[in-house]
Amino acid sequence: MTENSTMSAEAMNDRLRASPFSRWLGIQVVSFERETLNFEMCWREEFSGTPDNDNAHGGILAALLDTACGYACATRYGKPLTTVDLRIDYHRPAPGKVLKIESRVIKSGKRLATAEASVLSENGELLASGRGLFVV
Amino acid sequence: MTENSTMSAEAMNDRLRASPFSRWLGIQVVSFERETLNFEMCWREEFSGTPDNDNAHGGILAALLDTACGYACATRYGKPLTTVDLRIDYHRPAPGKVLKIESRVIKSGKRLATAEASVLSENGELLASGRGLFVV
Amino acid sequence: MTENSTMSAEAMNDRLRASPFSRWLGIQVVSFERETLNFEMCWREEFSGTPDNDNAHGGILAALLDTACGYACATRYGKPLTTVDLRIDYHRPAPGKVLKIESRVIKSGKRLATAEASVLSENGELLASGRGLFVV
Amino acid sequence: MTENSTMSAEAMNDRLRASPFSRWLGIQVVSFERETLNFEMCWREEFSGTPDNDNAHGGILAALLDTACGYACATRYGKPLTTVDLRIDYHRPAPGKVLKIESRVIKSGKRLATAEASVLSENGELLASGRGLFVV
Repeated sequence: MTENSTMSAEAMNDRLRASPFSRWLGIQVVSFERETLNFEMCWREEFSGTPDNDNAHGGILAALLDTACGYACATRYGKPLTTVDLRIDYHRPAPGKVLKIESRVIKSGKRLATAEASVLSENGELLASGRGLFVV
Repeated sequence: MTENSTMSAEAMNDRLRASPFSRWLGIQVVSFERETLNFEMCWREEFSGTPDNDNAHGGILAALLDTACGYACATRYGKPLTTVDLRIDYHRPAPGKVLKIESRVIKSGKRLATAEASVLSENGELLASGRGLFVV
Repeated sequence: MTENSTMSAEAMNDRLRASPFSRWLGIQVVSFERETLNFEMCWREEFSGTPDNDNAHGGILAALLDTACGYACATRYGKPLTTVDLRIDYHRPAPGKVLKIESRVIKSGKRLATAEASVLSENGELLASGRGLFVV
Repeated sequence: MTENSTMSAEAMNDRLRASPFSRWLGIQVVSFERETLNFEMCWREEFSGTPDNDNAHGGILAALLDTACGYACATRYGKPLTTVDLRIDYHRPAPGKVLKIESRVIKSGKRLATAEASVLSENGELLASGRGLFVV
């Protein structure tokens, strides 16, 4: 694996579907444009954090951001990288509908890479965002 | 809700089972001793990050740490608090078996609280750990 | 203090010079354009982390990012806010020359605000970046 | 450099005094006991964040935590390690007096190490704490 190899959206989606957890999460790549990798996911009832409403549990948002950052690295290294650490800011409740996720690489080095991602509502409101560090 | 009210382990487990996501995650409180809240969870096939092995996806570990930190706050505030931000360090692959989680409050203030948690293997090896900030 | 009040670059620089630490650090606002607050600082010999070279100590970069994020909040709240937590990624050694710092608000709420900042070399190379959470 | 080599407190203090920034910061090791490295520092007027009082600027606390975590690694690797990322929680204002800092290694690997540190007042009150990731 060398930097400057990349991975097609189709290959990313095959790999996401092959992972038991990512398949359950239902996250899929929709496009890669101007250094930004765009994802969508569909809602599952199990994502809800409380019985009172359909807002996503924070763990679901963390999983989406982790996955999106790891796959952003695949656009530079040819495969998703392994997370070393992850930092997440929760900005607003995430309603139980289609969510969009965007990610991009901040810094790609020989041994370590930093990526960031955001979770957005269907109409583009920022719900959660964060960063991860990945080992090459 | 005032500081110095607490929540019993039984009430925490009722609340965890009432949350669609926490019920799916299968995390339950086992004890609260010397300021530390102890949890266990059982493995589900969907937790696996790759088809190659049964190691937990990083999103599962993030969800466990988030939940454990939020409920640590319940020992001081009488209910689990809402996460503002979360920071996670992944130390070792987490094998697909029973995992133990420990959490405790670092600082409890009027408006904000900080808690930390660790995910351990059955034999006590540190797999992931982290901190969260919570709003009262 | 209400959101949507702002603070002029001149007032920010007066306040930076009034702080013993910020004055020592030598950080000053140069412009505020398209939601981004731009700073510069001059090198001091005491910033060096090791006797071998003139690269900035990580603590100096942390102080620059903390200051820049806190003052980004002043563009929304009329004064710099107090840091609750700070997360920093070190990307490259920061040479002992003029450094540029950019910051912007990610989310401004009633009680909490999130801001991000980057430290750049004179020729625009990313040296360190990070985020902070601030209390209103 | 191999793991399991260590560095004496005296050698750490020589190295801290040789760094222009650490010398200015005035941080010195006082003991290493039960896996915890203990430091003290003396107050300088330039540490003050505002002209109104003598509370330390957040950048000073970040620098102390960064230094303390890096030197905690020296107890395992024989020299302080380089910071990859740093995460800090500010718990209380840090008054302008002697501050104590404690640090310890959480995980020491072949390529990366995680350490944590706390800044305490003279009477042991927790003022700030955090974690860093370090490259071997």
